[in-house]
Amino acid sequence: MKVLIVYAHNEPKSFSAALLERSIRCLTEAGHEIRVSDLYEMGFNPVASADDFESRRFSDALQYDREQKFSHEQGAFAQDIQTEIDKLLWCDTLILQFPLWWWSVPAIMKGWIDRVLVNGVAYGKGKRMNTGGLKGRRAMLSLTSGCYPDMVAPDGLLGDLKISLWHLHSGTLAYTGFEVLEPFVAWSIHYSDPAKLAEYLDEYEARLATIATEEPMFFHPLEDFGPDWRMKGEINPNSVGHRRDGEKTH
Amino acid sequence: MKVLIVYAHNEPKSFSAALLERSIRCLTEAGHEIRVSDLYEMGFNPVASADDFESRRFSDALQYDREQKFSHEQGAFAQDIQTEIDKLLWCDTLILQFPLWWWSVPAIMKGWIDRVLVNGVAYGKGKRMNTGGLKGRRAMLSLTSGCYPDMVAPDGLLGDLKISLWHLHSGTLAYTGFEVLEPFVAWSIHYSDPAKLAEYLDEYEARLATIATEEPMFFHPLEDFGPDWRMKGEINPNSVGHRRDGEKTH
Repeated sequence: MKVLIVYAHNEPKSFSAALLERSIRCLTEAGHEIRVSDLYEMGFNPVASADDFESRRFSDALQYDREQKFSHEQGAFAQDIQTEIDKLLWCDTLILQFPLWWWSVPAIMKGWIDRVLVNGVAYGKGKRMNTGGLKGRRAMLSLTSGCYPDMVAPDGLLGDLKISLWHLHSGTLAYTGFEVLEPFVAWSIHYSDPAKLAEYLDEYEARLATIATEEPMFFHPLEDFGPDWRMKGEINPNSVGHRRDGEKTH
Repeated sequence: MKVLIVYAHNEPKSFSAALLERSIRCLTEAGHEIRVSDLYEMGFNPVASADDFESRRFSDALQYDREQKFSHEQGAFAQDIQTEIDKLLWCDTLILQFPLWWWSVPAIMKGWIDRVLVNGVAYGKGKRMNTGGLKGRRAMLSLTSGCYPDMVAPDGLLGDLKISLWHLHSGTLAYTGFEVLEPFVAWSIHYSDPAKLAEYLDEYEARLATIATEEPMFFHPLEDFGPDWRMKGEINPNSVGHRRDGEKTH
């Protein structure tokens, strides 16, 4: 595998950093090639702006996604973006590793998504879902959380984790063509003792040994939808983001 | 009403800017007090780091949410954060206005959420959902999207919009105690002619006239869950983030 790990944590002594270190070590020992984008260490700029383009198609008013497409055609991305796009196209496996903040990635990683998954490369001209620009690649979220698993059970206090993560799993990764693997989660890390944390590291190592071959999560392909963008046939029960109009979710 | 509008768009000539301008005008004319955090104009820093705290409880390794709690107790937040917390506690109505990027807010606004909805103020010590730190306030997402509504219908290509936004509606706003209003959405703005855009502005103005009194969306209160964090009774069909374990979503 060629693995790109995009990593965001603001503390080098954190458990997230330990997970990153373990993943680099075990993937390297297994003979895989690894690149890491450590966004905090890089001082990655998360704010999408006009400075992201060295030339512009429309100079009067910024239309960010249209300028992405133009910059892709012209090779006119700011260097920090082009570097990340190159890493993304190099990899066959993407791991986003982060602490779950507000059911999403930290802002610095949201900025990586906003600025690097560009129109023209990741999606565009009808390329999306199973025809997405990054198809043929696998992706996995690797996250730490303060929650207990029961809180994010389907009937848990905070709602079903798969529904909370739909915006990342389906809306971001599957949309751009990735085969999306089940997330790796280290739970309630504030309240885990060293033995439990060591166990999570071992679990993560074991999990990384299977990511090249395991079955990805199910997302409906484009051909399941009609020209009106609506599902033609049955909704797969694993597609938590879909339901029949007016039907109850339970 | 005392309305705080948190706004993120990278182009002052955008349709988002026109929506902001209209909202400020009509809310002011109706006699409400308005404050605006225009995150791009402010150059708001979205990256949560050790610099966010003027003093630290744990100096060896940064535990961001624990330092938030400590800084709240000590009055030790960096000035840009304290200013935003003060605005938040001043308002009775919060509007987050943004272009929908990857089913979420732009990174600069994710950073506002990460850094301003702090432990000790917005949540903590068991304060969450209907006991959240910001209870008694209302909140609404106001967003623009390139999508067509059929794409985000319950059985649409991209999945149910309510499920895609669960992380913001439930996981962020309802979690911190807000009564959450139905979102305002201006659809497919790339493909809307000037007449349609003018119509959206009028619709937004009409909508803003009702936000003080309209019925908020339903989210299960804390007391609906047992000590095991699982739902005790029936799941309300409007709670799109919950389902019975193993049950199908459709």
